[in-house]
Amino acid sequence: MSAKIRLYVEHPLGAGQSVPLDRGQAHYLFGVMRMAVGGQVKLFNGRDGEWLADIAQAGKRAGLLTCVEQTKLLQMPPDLWLLFAPIKKARTDFIVEKAAEMGAARILPVQTEFTNSERIRRDRLQAHAVEAAEQCGGTYVPQVDELQKLSRLLDHWPEGRQLMFCDEGEVGNALALAAADKSDAPWAILIGPEGGFSDAERKRLHALPQSHVVSLGPRILRADTAAVAAMTLWQQALGDW
Amino acid sequence: MSAKIRLYVEHPLGAGQSVPLDRGQAHYLFGVMRMAVGGQVKLFNGRDGEWLADIAQAGKRAGLLTCVEQTKLLQMPPDLWLLFAPIKKARTDFIVEKAAEMGAARILPVQTEFTNSERIRRDRLQAHAVEAAEQCGGTYVPQVDELQKLSRLLDHWPEGRQLMFCDEGEVGNALALAAADKSDAPWAILIGPEGGFSDAERKRLHALPQSHVVSLGPRILRADTAAVAAMTLWQQALGDW
Repeated sequence: MSAKIRLYVEHPLGAGQSVPLDRGQAHYLFGVMRMAVGGQVKLFNGRDGEWLADIAQAGKRAGLLTCVEQTKLLQMPPDLWLLFAPIKKARTDFIVEKAAEMGAARILPVQTEFTNSERIRRDRLQAHAVEAAEQCGGTYVPQVDELQKLSRLLDHWPEGRQLMFCDEGEVGNALALAAADKSDAPWAILIGPEGGFSDAERKRLHALPQSHVVSLGPRILRADTAAVAAMTLWQQALGDW
Repeated sequence: MSAKIRLYVEHPLGAGQSVPLDRGQAHYLFGVMRMAVGGQVKLFNGRDGEWLADIAQAGKRAGLLTCVEQTKLLQMPPDLWLLFAPIKKARTDFIVEKAAEMGAARILPVQTEFTNSERIRRDRLQAHAVEAAEQCGGTYVPQVDELQKLSRLLDHWPEGRQLMFCDEGEVGNALALAAADKSDAPWAILIGPEGGFSDAERKRLHALPQSHVVSLGPRILRADTAAVAAMTLWQQALGDW
């Protein structure tokens, strides 16, 4: 049977390379999944693609793997940021998971005027992104940033980065994305908060020369649904789908 | 302040029409949301559009509303079915919620060879669809069917209904949908189970003359992510977006 378990590690990967496991990974692999010496798993680190590895040592608190052969080349996602306003815990977790599955390169939680959340647990969200990457077969884990103010981010918005901006009741559609002909440019997608944008934010976003307004249909989508829908339109028009 | 609360009712709606509330709705409106006589809510029933209504009587176990004016015409979703294999409870709930938000007309849980779930709580899933319709501003609630065998459904597949079939590792893309030029036909989207389709199922699906294989990108998506992504591609190419 082929190795089904995929683990993200920090360690370099390469033919014959030994890779130590940390305590949590050893517990998961040997305690929960009942793997043992001689078993195989797949490893990726966001830099060296995916490697098949033999279990060389298995302990309660540690373990050692040996890389056998590369099973996937590194596939970097397109340079796409996902900006979203954190909402209730479970749905924020879902957005991060879905961003990783859908192939965002970086995840930026932003505080808008009507965002309820004052803070996030960045480390917990990063762990969700790792888990989603392990599950979806990706070879890259998007970085989750600390929460920052949207207004501050817009003050320093990178000149070349295009912004797909999804707002309730907007017209405009995904074909406009293709027509924008910015397929080589870096992009970002901004999902509105559940309370909507303030008038000042809306004005500012419309005034940004890099912004492209996209409609997500006639119904109001929850933020997590909107994130997947927007990333689908983008990947389809400009990304790696 | 405009009425923000939307309720789905079975009762006919029209100018001057009195609409009784059931016990659960009365508890929600008067107990939880602290609404009182003189307040306003919006009502829809899947047939008569959306109506603004005055609260005429408010009690612990019952209530009476009076329709004032129509605020939205009935907007039927396209004739799109969503077929999916039930998974863990929370994710199954999410799929139903997202199908309602994304504008599916009917939701059909199907049992495949590798589906773990033996049964579903149809009434609970239908309640999720109602809640999602209330939240997303739709005027229609998709019907949730009882769990049925995919093989049996395919035995009696409606002749004119096209089937968009999303499978891991498939090529083919959404542009093929547009090229299929079946924009007036009824459609269905089938999301594969987390364990994948069996070889026999895959063969059968490929042999079906109405089936169109669509890729959802290079990463493996969870079923709930795949449902939103597939509905996005379909709505964009052939639906009401």
